Amino acid sequence: MKLATIRTASGTAAVRVDEDAAVELGAVDLGAFLARPDWRNAAQTADGPRHELAGLDYAPLVPSPEKIFCVGLNYRTHILEMGRELPQYPALFAKFARALVGAYDPVVLPAGSEQVDWEAELGVVVGAEVRHADREQAAAAIAGYTVVNDVTARDFQYRSVEWLQGKTFERSTPVGPWLVTDAEPGEISCEVDGDTVQQADTADLVFDAAALVSYISQIITLVPGDIIATGTPGGVGHARKPARYLAEGSKLVTRIEGVGGLSNTLIKEQ
Amino acid sequence: MKLATIRTASGTAAVRVDEDAAVELGAVDLGAFLARPDWRNAAQTADGPRHELAGLDYAPLVPSPEKIFCVGLNYRTHILEMGRELPQYPALFAKFARALVGAYDPVVLPAGSEQVDWEAELGVVVGAEVRHADREQAAAAIAGYTVVNDVTARDFQYRSVEWLQGKTFERSTPVGPWLVTDAEPGEISCEVDGDTVQQADTADLVFDAAALVSYISQIITLVPGDIIATGTPGGVGHARKPARYLAEGSKLVTRIEGVGGLSNTLIKEQ
Repeated sequence: MKLATIRTASGTAAVRVDEDAAVELGAVDLGAFLARPDWRNAAQTADGPRHELAGLDYAPLVPSPEKIFCVGLNYRTHILEMGRELPQYPALFAKFARALVGAYDPVVLPAGSEQVDWEAELGVVVGAEVRHADREQAAAAIAGYTVVNDVTARDFQYRSVEWLQGKTFERSTPVGPWLVTDAEPGEISCEVDGDTVQQADTADLVFDAAALVSYISQIITLVPGDIIATGTPGGVGHARKPARYLAEGSKLVTRIEGVGGLSNTLIKEQ
Repeated sequence: MKLATIRTASGTAAVRVDEDAAVELGAVDLGAFLARPDWRNAAQTADGPRHELAGLDYAPLVPSPEKIFCVGLNYRTHILEMGRELPQYPALFAKFARALVGAYDPVVLPAGSEQVDWEAELGVVVGAEVRHADREQAAAAIAGYTVVNDVTARDFQYRSVEWLQGKTFERSTPVGPWLVTDAEPGEISCEVDGDTVQQADTADLVFDAAALVSYISQIITLVPGDIIATGTPGGVGHARKPARYLAEGSKLVTRIEGVGGLSNTLIKEQ
Protein backbone atom coordinates (compact mmCIF):
# COMPACT_ATOMS: atom_id res chain seq x y z
CA MET A 1 0.00 0.00 0.00
CA LYS A 2 1.23 3.49 -0.88
CA LEU A 3 0.12 6.52 1.12
CA ALA A 4 0.92 10.15 0.33
CA THR A 5 0.00 13.79 0.83
CA ILE A 6 -1.12 15.62 -2.30
CA ARG A 7 -1.99 19.22 -3.03
CA THR A 8 -5.55 19.71 -4.25
CA ALA A 9 -7.56 22.80 -5.21
CA SER A 10 -8.83 22.98 -1.63
CA GLY A 11 -5.60 22.31 0.25
CA THR A 12 -3.61 19.19 0.97
CA ALA A 13 -5.11 15.73 1.43
CA ALA A 14 -3.85 12.35 2.56
CA VAL A 15 -4.38 9.74 -0.15
CA ARG A 16 -3.88 6.06 -0.90
CA VAL A 17 -2.13 5.75 -4.24
CA ASP A 18 -3.60 2.79 -6.14
CA GLU A 19 -2.68 1.43 -9.57
CA ASP A 20 -5.33 3.52 -11.26
CA ALA A 21 -6.01 6.52 -9.01
CA ALA A 22 -5.32 8.24 -5.71
CA VAL A 23 -8.12 7.91 -3.17
CA GLU A 24 -8.61 10.49 -0.43
CA LEU A 25 -8.34 9.21 3.14
CA GLY A 26 -10.26 12.00 4.88
CA ALA A 27 -7.29 13.71 6.57
CA VAL A 28 -5.52 16.95 5.67
CA ASP A 29 -2.18 15.22 5.35
CA LEU A 30 -0.41 11.95 6.04
CA GLY A 31 0.78 13.12 9.46
CA ALA A 32 -2.80 13.69 10.62
CA PHE A 33 -3.85 10.38 9.06
CA LEU A 34 -1.12 8.33 10.76
CA ALA A 35 -2.16 9.81 14.10
CA ARG A 36 -5.36 7.69 13.91
CA PRO A 37 -4.75 4.47 15.80
CA ASP A 38 -6.65 2.49 13.13
CA TRP A 39 -4.89 4.06 10.17
CA ARG A 40 -3.89 0.76 8.57
CA ASN A 41 -7.46 -0.50 8.31
CA ALA A 42 -8.81 2.94 7.46
CA ALA A 43 -6.31 3.23 4.61
CA GLN A 44 -7.22 -0.15 3.18
CA THR A 45 -10.97 0.50 3.19
CA ALA A 46 -10.99 4.22 2.32
CA ASP A 47 -13.23 5.12 -0.59
CA GLY A 48 -13.06 8.94 -0.71
CA PRO A 49 -12.80 11.31 -3.68
CA ARG A 50 -10.45 10.05 -6.41
CA HIS A 51 -7.69 11.82 -8.31
CA GLU A 52 -6.10 10.78 -11.59
CA LEU A 53 -2.50 9.68 -11.12
CA ALA A 54 -1.27 11.75 -14.05
CA GLY A 55 -1.99 15.12 -12.50
CA LEU A 56 -0.98 14.41 -8.89
CA ASP A 57 0.92 17.18 -7.13
CA TYR A 58 2.83 15.57 -4.26
CA ALA A 59 3.39 17.65 -1.13
CA PRO A 60 6.20 16.72 1.27
CA LEU A 61 5.16 13.24 2.42
CA VAL A 62 4.43 14.55 5.93
CA PRO A 63 4.34 18.33 5.59
CA SER A 64 4.89 19.12 9.29
CA PRO A 65 6.41 16.19 11.12
CA GLU A 66 6.93 16.87 14.81
CA LYS A 67 10.49 15.60 14.46
CA ILE A 68 12.93 14.81 11.68
CA PHE A 69 15.95 12.83 12.82
CA CYS A 70 18.85 12.27 10.43
CA VAL A 71 21.70 9.82 10.76
CA GLY A 72 25.34 10.37 9.80
CA LEU A 73 27.63 7.72 8.33
CA ASN A 74 25.54 4.54 8.34
CA TYR A 75 26.54 2.40 5.32
CA ARG A 76 28.87 -0.41 6.35
CA THR A 77 30.73 -0.79 3.06
CA HIS A 78 31.36 2.93 2.79
CA ILE A 79 32.61 3.21 6.39
CA LEU A 80 34.99 0.27 5.98
CA GLU A 81 36.31 1.41 2.59
CA MET A 82 37.25 4.71 4.22
CA GLY A 83 39.26 2.81 6.81
CA ARG A 84 37.00 3.77 9.69
CA GLU A 85 35.60 1.53 12.37
CA LEU A 86 31.91 0.79 12.52
CA PRO A 87 30.26 3.17 15.00
CA GLN A 88 28.86 1.90 18.27
CA TYR A 89 26.10 4.53 18.29
CA PRO A 90 24.34 6.36 15.48
CA ALA A 91 25.32 9.99 14.86
CA LEU A 92 21.99 11.81 15.08
CA PHE A 93 21.16 15.30 13.96
CA ALA A 94 17.97 17.20 13.23
CA LYS A 95 16.21 18.93 10.41
CA PHE A 96 13.19 21.22 10.67
CA ALA A 97 9.97 20.73 8.70
CA ARG A 98 10.42 23.89 6.62
CA ALA A 99 13.37 22.19 4.94
CA LEU A 100 11.05 19.68 3.25
CA VAL A 101 9.72 19.81 -0.32
CA GLY A 102 7.63 17.37 -2.35
CA ALA A 103 8.93 14.56 -4.54
CA TYR A 104 8.88 16.58 -7.77
CA ASP A 105 9.14 20.09 -6.36
CA PRO A 106 12.05 22.38 -7.12
CA VAL A 107 14.83 22.18 -4.53
CA VAL A 108 16.02 25.62 -3.52
CA LEU A 109 19.80 26.14 -3.61
CA PRO A 110 20.87 27.48 -0.21
CA ALA A 111 21.76 31.13 -0.78
CA GLY A 112 25.37 31.84 0.12
CA SER A 113 26.51 28.24 -0.35
CA GLU A 114 28.92 27.24 -3.11
CA GLN A 115 28.96 23.56 -2.10
CA VAL A 116 25.48 22.11 -2.39
CA ASP A 117 25.68 18.33 -2.35
CA TRP A 118 23.37 15.31 -2.67
CA GLU A 119 22.67 12.56 -0.12
CA ALA A 120 20.25 9.85 -1.24
CA GLU A 121 18.67 8.27 1.83
CA LEU A 122 16.11 5.73 2.88
CA GLY A 123 13.41 7.47 4.93
CA VAL A 124 11.53 5.76 7.74
CA VAL A 125 8.12 7.05 8.77
CA VAL A 126 6.83 6.42 12.27
CA GLY A 127 3.26 5.08 12.50
CA ALA A 128 2.65 4.80 16.25
CA GLU A 129 3.76 6.51 19.45
CA VAL A 130 6.75 4.73 20.99
CA ARG A 131 9.04 5.33 23.93
CA HIS A 132 11.69 2.94 25.26
CA ALA A 133 10.84 0.48 22.50
CA ASP A 134 12.75 -2.76 22.11
CA ARG A 135 13.54 -3.94 18.59
CA GLU A 136 10.22 -5.73 18.13
CA GLN A 137 8.14 -2.82 19.41
CA ALA A 138 10.17 -0.47 17.25
CA ALA A 139 9.58 -2.56 14.13
CA ALA A 140 5.85 -2.58 14.86
CA ALA A 141 5.83 1.23 15.16
CA ILE A 142 7.23 1.77 11.67
CA ALA A 143 4.55 2.85 9.17
CA GLY A 144 6.86 2.23 6.23
CA TYR A 145 9.57 3.62 3.97
CA THR A 146 10.03 6.58 1.71
CA VAL A 147 12.77 8.33 -0.26
CA VAL A 148 14.71 11.34 1.01
CA ASN A 149 17.52 13.39 -0.43
CA ASP A 150 19.28 15.13 2.45
CA VAL A 151 20.62 17.91 0.20
CA THR A 152 23.44 19.53 2.16
CA ALA A 153 25.31 22.84 2.00
CA ARG A 154 28.78 21.44 2.83
CA ASP A 155 30.34 24.83 3.49
CA PHE A 156 27.64 25.61 6.07
CA GLN A 157 27.78 22.05 7.45
CA TYR A 158 31.46 22.53 8.29
CA ARG A 159 31.27 26.12 9.54
CA SER A 160 31.12 24.66 13.05
CA VAL A 161 31.33 21.25 14.68
CA GLU A 162 27.55 20.88 14.42
CA TRP A 163 26.07 20.04 11.01
CA LEU A 164 22.57 21.45 11.47
CA GLN A 165 23.08 24.70 9.61
CA GLY A 166 24.11 22.89 6.43
CA LYS A 167 21.21 20.49 6.71
CA THR A 168 18.08 22.53 7.36
CA PHE A 169 18.00 25.16 4.62
CA GLU A 170 14.46 26.11 3.66
CA ARG A 171 12.94 23.95 0.91
CA SER A 172 16.13 21.94 0.38
CA THR A 173 15.08 18.36 1.22
CA PRO A 174 12.76 16.38 -1.07
CA VAL A 175 10.81 13.58 0.59
CA GLY A 176 8.25 11.21 -0.93
CA PRO A 177 6.47 10.66 -3.19
CA TRP A 178 4.76 8.16 -0.93
CA LEU A 179 5.14 5.90 2.02
CA VAL A 180 5.17 2.19 1.17
CA THR A 181 3.79 0.09 3.99
CA ASP A 182 4.56 -3.39 2.75
CA ALA A 183 7.77 -3.50 0.74
CA GLU A 184 11.39 -4.27 1.54
CA PRO A 185 13.64 -1.49 0.26
CA GLY A 186 16.35 -2.62 -2.15
CA GLU A 187 19.00 -0.69 -4.06
CA ILE A 188 19.31 3.03 -3.43
CA SER A 189 20.69 5.32 -6.12
CA CYS A 190 21.19 8.95 -6.94
CA GLU A 191 21.59 10.49 -10.39
CA VAL A 192 22.78 14.00 -11.11
CA ASP A 193 22.16 15.24 -14.65
CA GLY A 194 21.91 11.62 -15.80
CA ASP A 195 25.13 10.39 -14.13
CA THR A 196 24.72 7.73 -11.46
CA VAL A 197 26.64 9.16 -8.50
CA GLN A 198 25.45 6.92 -5.67
CA GLN A 199 24.42 3.28 -5.73
CA ALA A 200 24.20 0.97 -2.73
CA ASP A 201 22.12 -1.66 -1.03
CA THR A 202 19.85 -0.38 1.77
CA ALA A 203 20.48 -3.72 3.52
CA ASP A 204 24.02 -2.43 4.14
CA LEU A 205 22.89 -0.06 6.92
CA VAL A 206 24.79 -0.37 10.21
CA PHE A 207 21.71 0.84 12.12
CA ASP A 208 18.59 -0.31 10.32
CA ALA A 209 15.11 1.17 10.66
CA ALA A 210 14.08 -0.83 13.73
CA ALA A 211 17.42 -0.21 15.44
CA LEU A 212 17.09 3.54 14.88
CA VAL A 213 13.48 3.73 16.10
CA SER A 214 14.43 1.74 19.19
CA TYR A 215 17.52 3.86 19.87
CA ILE A 216 15.82 7.23 19.41
CA SER A 217 12.85 6.12 21.51
CA GLN A 218 15.20 5.78 24.51
CA ILE A 219 15.76 9.54 24.21
CA ILE A 220 12.38 10.95 23.26
CA THR A 221 8.89 9.78 22.35
CA LEU A 222 8.51 9.15 18.63
CA VAL A 223 5.06 9.97 17.28
CA PRO A 224 3.14 9.21 14.08
CA GLY A 225 4.53 11.18 11.15
CA ASP A 226 8.04 11.54 12.56
CA ILE A 227 10.65 10.91 9.88
CA ILE A 228 14.08 9.33 10.21
CA ALA A 229 16.51 9.82 7.33
CA THR A 230 18.83 6.84 7.71
CA GLY A 231 22.07 8.18 6.24
CA THR A 232 23.67 8.20 2.81
CA PRO A 233 26.07 5.77 1.11
CA GLY A 234 29.35 6.70 -0.57
CA GLY A 235 29.47 8.83 -3.68
CA VAL A 236 28.66 12.32 -2.45
CA GLY A 237 30.03 15.20 -4.51
CA HIS A 238 32.14 16.72 -1.74
CA ALA A 239 34.30 13.57 -1.50
CA ARG A 240 35.03 13.43 -5.26
CA LYS A 241 38.29 14.60 -6.74
CA PRO A 242 37.59 17.09 -8.12
CA ALA A 243 34.55 17.82 -5.97
CA ARG A 244 31.23 18.07 -7.76
CA TYR A 245 28.29 20.15 -6.56
CA LEU A 246 24.72 20.94 -7.54
CA ALA A 247 23.96 24.17 -9.35
CA GLU A 248 21.01 26.02 -10.81
CA GLY A 249 19.25 23.69 -13.23
CA SER A 250 20.83 20.46 -11.92
CA LYS A 251 18.50 17.47 -12.23
CA LEU A 252 18.54 15.29 -9.12
CA VAL A 253 16.95 11.84 -9.28
CA THR A 254 16.82 9.68 -6.15
CA ARG A 255 15.49 6.13 -6.29
CA ILE A 256 15.00 3.24 -3.93
CA GLU A 257 14.00 -0.10 -5.39
CA GLY A 258 10.69 -1.24 -3.96
CA VAL A 259 9.97 2.20 -2.53
CA GLY A 260 9.86 4.96 -5.13
CA GLY A 261 11.69 7.87 -6.67
CA LEU A 262 12.20 11.61 -6.39
CA SER A 263 12.96 13.91 -9.31
CA ASN A 264 13.92 17.47 -8.50
CA THR A 265 15.42 20.43 -10.29
CA LEU A 266 17.66 22.81 -8.39
CA ILE A 267 16.57 26.44 -8.55
CA LYS A 268 17.87 29.69 -7.15
CA GLU A 269 15.90 31.28 -4.39
CA GLN A 270 13.36 33.75 -5.79
CA MET B 1 5.75 43.37 30.18
CA LYS B 2 5.90 39.68 31.09
CA LEU B 3 4.04 37.06 29.03
CA ALA B 4 3.73 33.37 29.84
CA THR B 5 1.84 30.15 29.28
CA ILE B 6 0.10 28.76 32.36
CA ARG B 7 -1.78 25.55 33.02
CA THR B 8 -5.38 26.09 34.10
CA ALA B 9 -8.21 23.72 34.98
CA SER B 10 -9.36 23.90 31.35
CA GLY B 11 -5.99 23.59 29.59
CA THR B 12 -3.16 26.02 28.97
CA ALA B 13 -3.59 29.75 28.47
CA ALA B 14 -1.37 32.62 27.41
CA VAL B 15 -1.23 35.30 30.10
CA ARG B 16 0.27 38.67 30.89
CA VAL B 17 1.90 38.50 34.30
CA ASP B 18 1.28 41.76 36.16
CA GLU B 19 2.42 42.81 39.64
CA ASP B 20 -0.80 41.59 41.21
CA ALA B 21 -2.23 38.89 38.93
CA ALA B 22 -1.92 37.02 35.65
CA VAL B 23 -4.41 38.13 33.00
CA GLU B 24 -5.50 35.78 30.21
CA LEU B 25 -4.76 36.92 26.68
CA GLY B 26 -7.32 34.79 24.84
CA ALA B 27 -4.91 32.29 23.27
CA VAL B 28 -4.17 28.67 24.21
CA ASP B 29 -0.48 29.39 24.66
CA LEU B 30 2.17 31.99 24.07
CA GLY B 31 3.10 30.51 20.69
CA ALA B 32 -0.44 30.98 19.39
CA PHE B 33 -0.56 34.45 20.91
CA LEU B 34 2.71 35.63 19.35
CA ALA B 35 1.41 34.50 15.95
CA ARG B 36 -1.03 37.43 16.03
CA PRO B 37 0.53 40.33 14.16
CA ASP B 38 -0.83 42.79 16.76
CA TRP B 39 0.29 40.81 19.80
CA ARG B 40 2.13 43.70 21.46
CA ASN B 41 -0.93 45.92 21.57
CA ALA B 42 -3.23 43.02 22.36
CA ALA B 43 -1.03 42.05 25.30
CA GLN B 44 -1.01 45.58 26.71
CA THR B 45 -4.77 46.01 26.56
CA ALA B 46 -5.88 42.46 27.41
CA ASP B 47 -8.41 42.25 30.22
CA GLY B 48 -9.35 38.55 30.35
CA PRO B 49 -9.88 36.22 33.31
CA ARG B 50 -7.38 36.77 36.12
CA HIS B 51 -5.32 34.29 38.13
CA GLU B 52 -3.62 34.85 41.46
CA LEU B 53 0.15 34.86 41.14
CA ALA B 54 0.63 32.54 44.10
CA GLY B 55 -0.97 29.52 42.50
CA LEU B 56 0.34 29.89 38.95
CA ASP B 57 1.44 26.69 37.25
CA TYR B 58 3.83 27.66 34.47
CA ALA B 59 3.90 25.49 31.35
CA PRO B 60 6.93 25.55 29.07
CA LEU B 61 6.99 29.18 27.89
CA VAL B 62 6.06 28.12 24.35
CA PRO B 63 4.86 24.51 24.67
CA SER B 64 5.31 23.58 20.99
CA PRO B 65 7.67 25.94 19.24
CA GLU B 66 8.12 25.12 15.56
CA LYS B 67 11.87 25.32 16.06
CA ILE B 68 14.34 25.39 18.92
CA PHE B 69 17.83 26.42 17.92
CA CYS B 70 20.67 26.12 20.41
CA VAL B 71 24.11 27.66 20.22
CA GLY B 72 27.41 26.10 21.29
CA LEU B 73 30.30 27.98 22.88
CA ASN B 74 29.22 31.64 22.80
CA TYR B 75 30.68 33.40 25.88
CA ARG B 76 33.75 35.45 24.92
CA THR B 77 35.51 35.28 28.29
CA HIS B 78 35.03 31.54 28.57
CA ILE B 79 36.29 30.89 25.02
CA LEU B 80 39.38 33.04 25.53
CA GLU B 81 40.20 31.56 28.96
CA MET B 82 40.20 28.12 27.35
CA GLY B 83 42.78 29.36 24.85
CA ARG B 84 40.45 29.07 21.88
CA GLU B 85 39.86 31.60 19.16
CA LEU B 86 36.54 33.37 18.89
CA PRO B 87 34.39 31.55 16.33
CA GLN B 88 33.53 33.15 13.01
CA TYR B 89 30.14 31.44 12.88
CA PRO B 90 27.81 30.19 15.61
CA ALA B 91 27.69 26.43 16.25
CA LEU B 92 23.99 25.64 15.89
CA PHE B 93 22.16 22.53 16.96
CA ALA B 94 18.53 21.65 17.57
CA LYS B 95 16.24 20.52 20.31
CA PHE B 96 12.70 19.18 19.92
CA ALA B 97 9.69 20.59 21.76
CA ARG B 98 9.13 17.44 23.83
CA ALA B 99 12.37 18.23 25.64
CA LEU B 100 10.80 21.31 27.26
CA VAL B 101 9.35 21.59 30.77
CA GLY B 102 7.98 24.55 32.72
CA ALA B 103 9.94 26.87 34.99
CA TYR B 104 9.20 24.98 38.21
CA ASP B 105 8.50 21.51 36.78
CA PRO B 106 10.60 18.50 37.64
CA VAL B 107 13.41 17.88 35.16
CA VAL B 108 13.60 14.22 34.19
CA LEU B 109 17.07 12.65 34.42
CA PRO B 110 17.84 11.04 31.05
CA ALA B 111 17.62 7.29 31.62
CA GLY B 112 20.91 5.58 30.85
CA SER B 113 23.01 8.71 31.41
CA GLU B 114 25.51 8.98 34.25
CA GLN B 115 26.62 12.48 33.27
CA VAL B 116 23.70 14.88 33.43
CA ASP B 117 24.97 18.45 33.43
CA TRP B 118 23.63 22.01 33.66
CA GLU B 119 23.85 24.82 31.11
CA ALA B 120 22.26 28.11 32.15
CA GLU B 121 21.32 30.06 29.03
CA LEU B 122 19.63 33.23 27.90
CA GLY B 123 16.65 32.32 25.72
CA VAL B 124 15.44 34.48 22.85
CA VAL B 125 11.84 34.22 21.69
CA VAL B 126 10.92 35.18 18.13
CA GLY B 127 7.90 37.46 17.78
CA ALA B 128 7.55 37.89 14.01
CA GLU B 129 8.23 35.92 10.86
CA VAL B 130 11.66 36.77 9.44
CA ARG B 131 13.80 35.53 6.60
CA HIS B 132 17.08 37.03 5.37
CA ALA B 133 16.87 39.66 8.10
CA ASP B 134 19.60 42.22 8.58
CA ARG B 135 20.54 43.13 12.13
CA GLU B 136 17.88 45.80 12.46
CA GLN B 137 15.09 43.60 11.10
CA ALA B 138 16.29 40.78 13.34
CA ALA B 139 16.20 42.97 16.43
CA ALA B 140 12.65 44.07 15.57
CA ALA B 141 11.57 40.41 15.24
CA ILE B 142 12.61 39.52 18.80
CA ALA B 143 9.65 39.26 21.18
CA GLY B 144 11.92 39.22 24.20
CA TYR B 145 14.03 37.13 26.56
CA THR B 146 13.52 34.17 28.81
CA VAL B 147 15.58 31.72 30.90
CA VAL B 148 16.62 28.27 29.68
CA ASN B 149 18.66 25.51 31.22
CA ASP B 150 19.95 23.32 28.40
CA VAL B 151 20.36 20.28 30.68
CA THR B 152 22.67 17.91 28.82
CA ALA B 153 23.50 14.21 29.03
CA ARG B 154 27.25 14.55 28.35
CA ASP B 155 27.81 10.84 27.71
CA PHE B 156 25.10 10.86 25.04
CA GLN B 157 26.30 14.21 23.68
CA TYR B 158 29.72 12.70 22.99
CA ARG B 159 28.58 9.30 21.71
CA SER B 160 28.98 10.72 18.20
CA VAL B 161 30.22 13.93 16.61
CA GLU B 162 26.70 15.36 16.73
CA TRP B 163 25.40 16.62 20.07
CA LEU B 164 21.65 16.26 19.47
CA GLN B 165 21.13 13.01 21.33
CA GLY B 166 22.52 14.46 24.56
CA LYS B 167 20.42 17.60 24.18
CA THR B 168 16.89 16.53 23.40
CA PHE B 169 15.94 14.05 26.11
CA GLU B 170 12.25 14.18 26.94
CA ARG B 171 11.32 16.71 29.64
CA SER B 172 14.91 17.72 30.30
CA THR B 173 14.96 21.44 29.44
CA PRO B 174 13.22 24.01 31.65
CA VAL B 175 12.23 27.25 29.93
CA GLY B 176 10.39 30.25 31.36
CA PRO B 177 8.78 31.31 33.55
CA TRP B 178 7.93 34.19 31.24
CA LEU B 179 9.05 36.22 28.32
CA VAL B 180 10.13 39.76 29.18
CA THR B 181 9.51 42.17 26.33
CA ASP B 182 11.19 45.29 27.61
CA ALA B 183 14.22 44.48 29.75
CA GLU B 184 17.94 44.18 29.10
CA PRO B 185 19.25 40.87 30.46
CA GLY B 186 22.07 41.20 32.98
CA GLU B 187 23.98 38.59 34.98
CA ILE B 188 23.23 34.94 34.33
CA SER B 189 23.79 32.38 37.07
CA CYS B 190 23.21 28.75 37.90
CA GLU B 191 23.01 27.19 41.35
CA VAL B 192 23.12 23.48 42.08
CA ASP B 193 22.03 22.49 45.59
CA GLY B 194 22.78 26.04 46.74
CA ASP B 195 26.28 26.29 45.20
CA THR B 196 26.75 28.92 42.54
CA VAL B 197 28.29 26.99 39.66
CA GLN B 198 27.92 29.46 36.79
CA GLN B 199 27.96 33.25 36.83
CA ALA B 200 28.54 35.51 33.84
CA ASP B 201 27.35 38.61 32.06
CA THR B 202 24.94 38.02 29.17
CA ALA B 203 26.55 41.02 27.46
CA ASP B 204 29.60 38.78 26.96
CA LEU B 205 27.94 36.80 24.14
CA VAL B 206 29.98 36.54 20.94
CA PHE B 207 26.77 36.26 18.90
CA ASP B 208 24.03 38.26 20.56
CA ALA B 209 20.29 37.84 20.09
CA ALA B 210 20.00 40.03 17.00
CA ALA B 211 23.09 38.46 15.41
CA LEU B 212 21.67 34.97 15.94
CA VAL B 213 18.21 35.82 14.59
CA SER B 214 19.81 37.45 11.55
CA TYR B 215 22.18 34.51 10.97
CA ILE B 216 19.57 31.78 11.35
CA SER B 217 17.13 33.67 9.15
CA GLN B 218 19.60 33.30 6.25
CA ILE B 219 19.03 29.55 6.54
CA ILE B 220 15.35 29.18 7.34
CA THR B 221 12.33 31.30 8.14
CA LEU B 222 11.99 32.03 11.84
CA VAL B 223 8.40 32.26 13.05
CA PRO B 224 6.66 33.54 16.19
CA GLY B 225 7.32 31.28 19.14
CA ASP B 226 10.63 29.93 17.87
CA ILE B 227 13.20 29.79 20.65
CA ILE B 228 16.94 30.33 20.47
CA ALA B 229 19.03 29.18 23.45
CA THR B 230 22.11 31.35 23.15
CA GLY B 231 24.77 29.15 24.74
CA THR B 232 26.16 28.71 28.24
CA PRO B 233 29.08 30.35 30.05
CA GLY B 234 31.90 28.53 31.85
CA GLY B 235 31.29 26.46 34.95
CA VAL B 236 29.56 23.34 33.67
CA GLY B 237 29.97 20.22 35.76
CA HIS B 238 31.65 18.14 33.07
CA ALA B 239 34.63 20.53 32.93
CA ARG B 240 35.23 20.47 36.71
CA LYS B 241 37.95 18.41 38.30
CA PRO B 242 36.52 16.23 39.65
CA ALA B 243 33.49 16.39 37.37
CA ARG B 244 30.15 17.12 39.03
CA TYR B 245 26.81 15.98 37.72
CA LEU B 246 23.12 16.24 38.55
CA ALA B 247 21.39 13.37 40.32
CA GLU B 248 17.99 12.47 41.65
CA GLY B 249 16.88 15.22 44.01
CA SER B 250 19.37 17.84 42.78
CA LYS B 251 17.98 21.38 43.00
CA LEU B 252 18.76 23.45 39.93
CA VAL B 253 18.21 27.21 40.04
CA THR B 254 18.84 29.29 36.93
CA ARG B 255 18.57 33.08 37.02
CA ILE B 256 19.03 35.98 34.66
CA GLU B 257 18.98 39.47 36.10
CA GLY B 258 16.17 41.50 34.57
CA VAL B 259 14.56 38.41 33.07
CA GLY B 260 13.57 35.81 35.68
CA GLY B 261 14.43 32.51 37.25
CA LEU B 262 13.85 28.77 36.97
CA SER B 263 13.81 26.37 39.90
CA ASN B 264 13.73 22.68 39.12
CA THR B 265 14.25 19.42 40.94
CA LEU B 266 15.79 16.49 39.12
CA ILE B 267 13.69 13.32 39.21
CA LYS B 268 14.07 9.83 37.85
CA GLU B 269 11.84 8.85 34.99
CA GLN B 270 8.64 7.23 36.29
